[in-house]
Amino acid sequence: MTKIAVLGAGSWGTTFAKVMADSAVVGGAEPAVVLWARRPEVAAEITESHTNTTYLGETRLPAMITATTDLAEAVRDAEVVVLAVPAQSLRSQLQVVRENLHDSAILVSLIKGLERGTDLRMSEVIGAELTVAPDRIVVVSGPNLAMEIAREQPTASVVACTSTETAERVAALCNNAYFRPYTNTDVIGVEIAGIVKNVIALAVGICDGQQLGDNSKASVITRGLAETTRLATELGGRLETFSGLAGLGDLVATCASPLSRNRSAGRLLGEGFTAEEATARLSQTAEGMKSGSAVVELARQHQVEMPICEAVVAVLDGVLPVDRLSSLLLARDLKAEGR
Amino acid sequence: MTKIAVLGAGSWGTTFAKVMADSAVVGGAEPAVVLWARRPEVAAEITESHTNTTYLGETRLPAMITATTDLAEAVRDAEVVVLAVPAQSLRSQLQVVRENLHDSAILVSLIKGLERGTDLRMSEVIGAELTVAPDRIVVVSGPNLAMEIAREQPTASVVACTSTETAERVAALCNNAYFRPYTNTDVIGVEIAGIVKNVIALAVGICDGQQLGDNSKASVITRGLAETTRLATELGGRLETFSGLAGLGDLVATCASPLSRNRSAGRLLGEGFTAEEATARLSQTAEGMKSGSAVVELARQHQVEMPICEAVVAVLDGVLPVDRLSSLLLARDLKAEGR
Repeated sequence: MTKIAVLGAGSWGTTFAKVMADSAVVGGAEPAVVLWARRPEVAAEITESHTNTTYLGETRLPAMITATTDLAEAVRDAEVVVLAVPAQSLRSQLQVVRENLHDSAILVSLIKGLERGTDLRMSEVIGAELTVAPDRIVVVSGPNLAMEIAREQPTASVVACTSTETAERVAALCNNAYFRPYTNTDVIGVEIAGIVKNVIALAVGICDGQQLGDNSKASVITRGLAETTRLATELGGRLETFSGLAGLGDLVATCASPLSRNRSAGRLLGEGFTAEEATARLSQTAEGMKSGSAVVELARQHQVEMPICEAVVAVLDGVLPVDRLSSLLLARDLKAEGR
Repeated sequence: MTKIAVLGAGSWGTTFAKVMADSAVVGGAEPAVVLWARRPEVAAEITESHTNTTYLGETRLPAMITATTDLAEAVRDAEVVVLAVPAQSLRSQLQVVRENLHDSAILVSLIKGLERGTDLRMSEVIGAELTVAPDRIVVVSGPNLAMEIAREQPTASVVACTSTETAERVAALCNNAYFRPYTNTDVIGVEIAGIVKNVIALAVGICDGQQLGDNSKASVITRGLAETTRLATELGGRLETFSGLAGLGDLVATCASPLSRNRSAGRLLGEGFTAEEATARLSQTAEGMKSGSAVVELARQHQVEMPICEAVVAVLDGVLPVDRLSSLLLARDLKAEGR
């Protein structure tokens, strides 16, 4: 019997546990899916009532999903360990993971963010902290608003690993009627797309807050994806990833959705609230507010121009008045398109 | 004094006349902008009250814009002739244009569509009917919802011509504080992007009508842009155009906006109305419903796979039940992304 551990019982971790459980039913397999939750009341609710009302409302979870607050127990003997904890706390959780990790276990990251201080991607943090080779580290990313997937509304996603074989193995574990994984070997591109997306979503939210309309937002999305692509290709990522589901797809879903935390935070910024006030008003954290400065730092190190991310970080830092952002976004550089 | 003629006083023609008039004010020039309207009451309202309430509500038009119902008079001595008439009636209007056209006049197409029967792009129809060389034919396209531009909400756009000099001349005529043109020499790519976009917007609207959520719509947008790019590059267009404002930008603006006719028509189709019923319910025509079959025909001629456009046309023709479209869209082909 396959054991799958999912670390983190937030909206995406819980939803992905459901995706894998429903995939097992389709495939005729019967794995144990163990969710690690930090809070005892969340773990108890998942195991006993098969719901996680804090994050997923009335969504019914498959009975094969159980939860525990014991991280070591969750990881022990798991063939696949899915990581869905906050980006900035990943490294500290990995210490317990390391002591209990099965020799051949595959690590799957659902996390979108750069580690502050080191500017490392999540797959890099995992590789370094667990001493695991890249062919055992997988990244899942795409147009994947958790709440919609929990409702079983159809979507597609990208499962990326330097090893096609490992990617295909994980894809088979999460393939069902409402979730369709496609494999990709561009881990760098897929991770950078997911990280920068949150910062661009803040910019789109700011446009919302300033009531700039869909033309302006589409311009920001277009130029935002272009600057993300510049950074990723400089780091070794591939151009095609950005016209795909993890690039364009994820960005468009996030920027279209009223469910996006980053867009909601941006809207508050656009309405004139400070970063602190916006954070206080939202019950969950907007990842782009934490990763933004790391993205800009990485871009500067590699001499890549990212005017939209720079502007968003300047607004977050309180050094750029938010109502100057739009003219800045439209006024920059280009004459012939693409220059 | 420069004379600019704009043929067609619908929402986009009227708005673009305003863009050029406002640009002239910025540039210190004082051209005459003459709008040709088919209906006498619309022409009279524009000239006398400086409004076009049928299409643009209370938007105030600059006084330098006058309107006439006399097509020959509008075209005579104009240095720039902007075409903003319906795609399927362009050829017949061009006969009057030809007889009155100044020898060195530049033709600017705002029209998005393929001519039914011939499957020709608008710039091709213009070139053939007026015997004008490509270096005098310009195409303007981008994330340009007319109503938002009429309200002076900021946007960017692409001005494309095989001659950079001509593109720059037209860009200078429409550059102002709320409208920022970028030049491009890929006329084929820019036109194909604008044409197929309307068909993809129908598909996105269908997802809306079927309440499929933002993940599904983002997947359709991503894969729709990919199939558009395949067709355009086969026809001689350039890849980069599709990650730019006329490709991605226009598609995202259209698919995000509640103002889009094509998306609205798609939504009605998704709710189960037939193509005839959807057309009857909308006061304006959805261009994608007319261009769809021509797009599919063109794709077949060039052996390009366009599963989303094929599915939309099958729904329009009543041969594919609309509730089978979503599973079809997600079920198709790919294993590794991009294959």
